[in-house]
Amino acid sequence: MLLFLWSSSLEKWIIKSRKQEHRGNIFLYETIDAHHPTKPIACGPYDIIRLADWVNVVAITEDNKIILVEQYRFGMDEITIETPAGAINRGEDPLVAAKRELEEETGYISDEWESLGRVSVNPAFMTNSAHFFLAKNCRPDGEQNFDPDEDIELVIKPVSELKEVLKNMDHSLSELCISRYLLK
Amino acid sequence: MLLFLWSSSLEKWIIKSRKQEHRGNIFLYETIDAHHPTKPIACGPYDIIRLADWVNVVAITEDNKIILVEQYRFGMDEITIETPAGAINRGEDPLVAAKRELEEETGYISDEWESLGRVSVNPAFMTNSAHFFLAKNCRPDGEQNFDPDEDIELVIKPVSELKEVLKNMDHSLSELCISRYLLK
Repeated sequence: MLLFLWSSSLEKWIIKSRKQEHRGNIFLYETIDAHHPTKPIACGPYDIIRLADWVNVVAITEDNKIILVEQYRFGMDEITIETPAGAINRGEDPLVAAKRELEEETGYISDEWESLGRVSVNPAFMTNSAHFFLAKNCRPDGEQNFDPDEDIELVIKPVSELKEVLKNMDHSLSELCISRYLLK
Repeated sequence: MLLFLWSSSLEKWIIKSRKQEHRGNIFLYETIDAHHPTKPIACGPYDIIRLADWVNVVAITEDNKIILVEQYRFGMDEITIETPAGAINRGEDPLVAAKRELEEETGYISDEWESLGRVSVNPAFMTNSAHFFLAKNCRPDGEQNFDPDEDIELVIKPVSELKEVLKNMDHSLSELCISRYLLK
């Protein structure tokens, strides 16, 4: 059924060289030189950002409310509302990371977890995936444990208001995670 | 109505210093040091990636098919299916960029454009927004004009198969753009 899309004649390119430019705090910045295997197309240096995979959680309480986190974000210099989320530690299972991030950021835990799949964050120049989870019947029986640089407030809203909530969010991956829940 | 989410007591942090680490080909990599205005929380150096804004287009033909592009992507080292998309040139209006990218990548043009809004790509450490557009009644009356390093094939599928198509895509912003179209 799904094979219809893969009758492509496209070929993967050949990466000729790879250079580490800078080790950032949350990523490794590389440049590569590459060329097409058969066509006279070459490209480089091309920016690549190597990152850990991330998790995003649609967390729903026993009384059908969604648990969101509000925090200051340096990239946009704005206070945003997002799903609980974070980076997966090296070797950590995505579900374990999702459970950890939900509890650390919100103090909520759940016994009912469901995968909402994964997606490449930006296959053009980023190497990582976001893993999406649904946590049902969440209850506030865990312990919040912020990273040293986290200052987070909870925003808890009825699932019936989700489409309005989406309009107040401003993070592509938080919105996509909730969209998968709404479209499932 | 929407004010309910903004009763927050959170404050924006103060950026103490900003250092340009590296000028990449598609971004500027900076680090910043910052601190909370009142709480004893400090942070840094913190990675920031400065990027141009991007556009993504849900392009629908006169006979109700969606126009997608398939290409090799260096970040994931994979061939992906995505919505027509690209970076906005300096000073360019997002809608103009969307029209340009649709025509350059697909050869299709449209007279019926509608905004599907914008979103912060990743407010945590990226500075840019993605602008989403719907182009209706697209017709193949334009001219494809690839960038020198582009090798693109078109994938055209009935809108009735959109949910199946989504399962074959692997780019968070392409999927979010289509999700907004489906949830609108």
